[in-house]
Amino acid sequence: MEPSSGSRDARPVVPPVAAVLPAGGSGERLGGATPKQFCAVQGRPLVSYTVRAMERVGWISDIIVVVSPENIETMKSIIEKYGHKRVMIVKGGITRHRSIFNGLKVFAENEFSNHLLQKPEVVIIHDAVRPFVEEDILSKVVMAAKEHGAAGAIRPLVSTVIASAADGCLDHSLERARYRASEMPQAFLFDIIYEAYQQCTDYDLDYGTECLHLALKYCKTNAKLVEGTADLWKVTYKRDLYAAESIIKDNLSQQVCVITNVKEAVAQVGFLLRESLKSQIKVEAISISLSKNDSHLQNILSGQCYNFICINDKKCVIQETQQLVDMLEKSNIPLLYPVVLILVHLDISENISFSIGMEELTRIKKFAREVKKKNILVYGLLIQYKVRIS
Amino acid sequence: MEPSSGSRDARPVVPPVAAVLPAGGSGERLGGATPKQFCAVQGRPLVSYTVRAMERVGWISDIIVVVSPENIETMKSIIEKYGHKRVMIVKGGITRHRSIFNGLKVFAENEFSNHLLQKPEVVIIHDAVRPFVEEDILSKVVMAAKEHGAAGAIRPLVSTVIASAADGCLDHSLERARYRASEMPQAFLFDIIYEAYQQCTDYDLDYGTECLHLALKYCKTNAKLVEGTADLWKVTYKRDLYAAESIIKDNLSQQVCVITNVKEAVAQVGFLLRESLKSQIKVEAISISLSKNDSHLQNILSGQCYNFICINDKKCVIQETQQLVDMLEKSNIPLLYPVVLILVHLDISENISFSIGMEELTRIKKFAREVKKKNILVYGLLIQYKVRIS
Repeated sequence: MEPSSGSRDARPVVPPVAAVLPAGGSGERLGGATPKQFCAVQGRPLVSYTVRAMERVGWISDIIVVVSPENIETMKSIIEKYGHKRVMIVKGGITRHRSIFNGLKVFAENEFSNHLLQKPEVVIIHDAVRPFVEEDILSKVVMAAKEHGAAGAIRPLVSTVIASAADGCLDHSLERARYRASEMPQAFLFDIIYEAYQQCTDYDLDYGTECLHLALKYCKTNAKLVEGTADLWKVTYKRDLYAAESIIKDNLSQQVCVITNVKEAVAQVGFLLRESLKSQIKVEAISISLSKNDSHLQNILSGQCYNFICINDKKCVIQETQQLVDMLEKSNIPLLYPVVLILVHLDISENISFSIGMEELTRIKKFAREVKKKNILVYGLLIQYKVRIS
Repeated sequence: MEPSSGSRDARPVVPPVAAVLPAGGSGERLGGATPKQFCAVQGRPLVSYTVRAMERVGWISDIIVVVSPENIETMKSIIEKYGHKRVMIVKGGITRHRSIFNGLKVFAENEFSNHLLQKPEVVIIHDAVRPFVEEDILSKVVMAAKEHGAAGAIRPLVSTVIASAADGCLDHSLERARYRASEMPQAFLFDIIYEAYQQCTDYDLDYGTECLHLALKYCKTNAKLVEGTADLWKVTYKRDLYAAESIIKDNLSQQVCVITNVKEAVAQVGFLLRESLKSQIKVEAISISLSKNDSHLQNILSGQCYNFICINDKKCVIQETQQLVDMLEKSNIPLLYPVVLILVHLDISENISFSIGMEELTRIKKFAREVKKKNILVYGLLIQYKVRIS
């Protein structure tokens, strides 16, 4: 997708932008065998959340994920499984700086692909283990980089920083107010950061970690520092994985939309459900035919984020549900938040067949597995009700 | 409790030690109205976990919790509710340093209490919002303080630290390997830190945060820096509360001990339960009379940490459960970890009275509320089984 240019809407004019996500870390500090970027959070690898955070920003044209050679296949399967777009995998080096340098090369050298990607004006560098990055801070560092050549998000220090002497005793402590923690995202004019990496020494590549430092040292570019929000933190320890899991659960919308078809009996169930839920959560109820392009539903999809309960009495609900999933996907809501979709199938008949109900649930289960990759969580509930003839 | 002295066991000889816990923070960074030290984690205020972490260390004689004036009543009720021992509440000042100074004064001045507490040789200073501190690091900083006059736990920096220029641009970044984050606990010879606080300026008291810095500046004491473990981290943001909650849940033992009385029918149920559980968790099953001082049970209590399932067929199980709770309390296990106790009451009779069962459960519920304060989580399960006479 091309960045907007020259338009008069609120969004700033963003130059051609790409993103490089170093994801080559070994995750030693986590104390586990799996590198933290591949650890599952709510069943999905952490790196997939970070890629999604980039992907949902329309003006980022290419997302380069740099992984160590042994994880290339894992990363490929993640991209395929979660349907990530505009993503290219690049083989990492043995250090963070070498990995980022490899990521930048795909825009300037033929080393890693047989076709060069279009060189961006600005490149974002962001850690694969900071999944909660928002478009706002990305756009701020990009605009600052366009003006200053380099920019990076910063945060206040949580602890005092101290220097130790050779004997393991305190040498001095830094005045906390004068210093900041350098976080991600950072952004650079591509030519500046690429030049810096080409010029820097092996020592820099092997022992350095700070891109802003390279831009300053080799291109005399003083990066603009941008105050970031608390959600930029890096998943470093096991406790951070716990926190990430809770934040993702917290992001689930507390609003629900009950959808029924237009049949009176079913619409009535929807109405009653709304009445009993409305004291606890914000709830909408609409009776529509999903196959028609309903404007009310479109308004809901383009407005606040909702979860959905669809009540149906027909035999095969998958087809209609697929339509709703398609509409949700188009709305981009699942790129931002997980959406819960509960399918309630009312089976009101004289002769209840348990096995037919189970078949239906098995179909829904299979369907749910598929759409979960799109961040839509489908649950099926079958209610069989026997009509007595007396 | 007096610290051990002169013994030849593995534990180091610890001098008379007290602890000061500054808990006066306002919790702005958490974004909530409740200061973080009073936020509930699994239903219990964070500060109570930290007090417990100190309390379980037998050689810490006094624990001084310094809270802001408006939270004194809250803190009193926490101490009462969770039965904390050796704790004294002191009114905090308007800054962290002023609060710590107030805490130290209870050992040297009559300002805050009508009886002076016995002056310790070494005083530990530890944040109320670092609940996972272990005895090992406490003992390390105390021993180092005894030798060097001051000592503090440090951790590697997670992010690069940078200095910004007046224009909001990068001035320079610090070489990450040379610096450390100063964490808690810290420990000092009482006379040194008290001297430093008496000498320091109002500017220090109002704008400083680092106790090690005061000891260096006013007493020329270079603190010994002690590498801490990852669990020393400070609960600062909302995500840290999530992490703390998950860690506490994780600390629940995955081992279970099934206790039945000696009646054959009940012992048989216990045996069957063990057989069906043993593929999933480590499980012991014993048949004993709880009223007797059973050596097998004593071994379990003094060995690895277990949760308990007590199966009974008597009418009133509270009394026997109380005995087990008493034994658990004496073992100090609940000071370290939450213990789960599931009471299964088998009601096998000809005439089942639902209401009698409910009464029993109500009693257990009330009992559970009481012992929850002791970190023992009691759940009751009533299984009524009708014996058919045919």
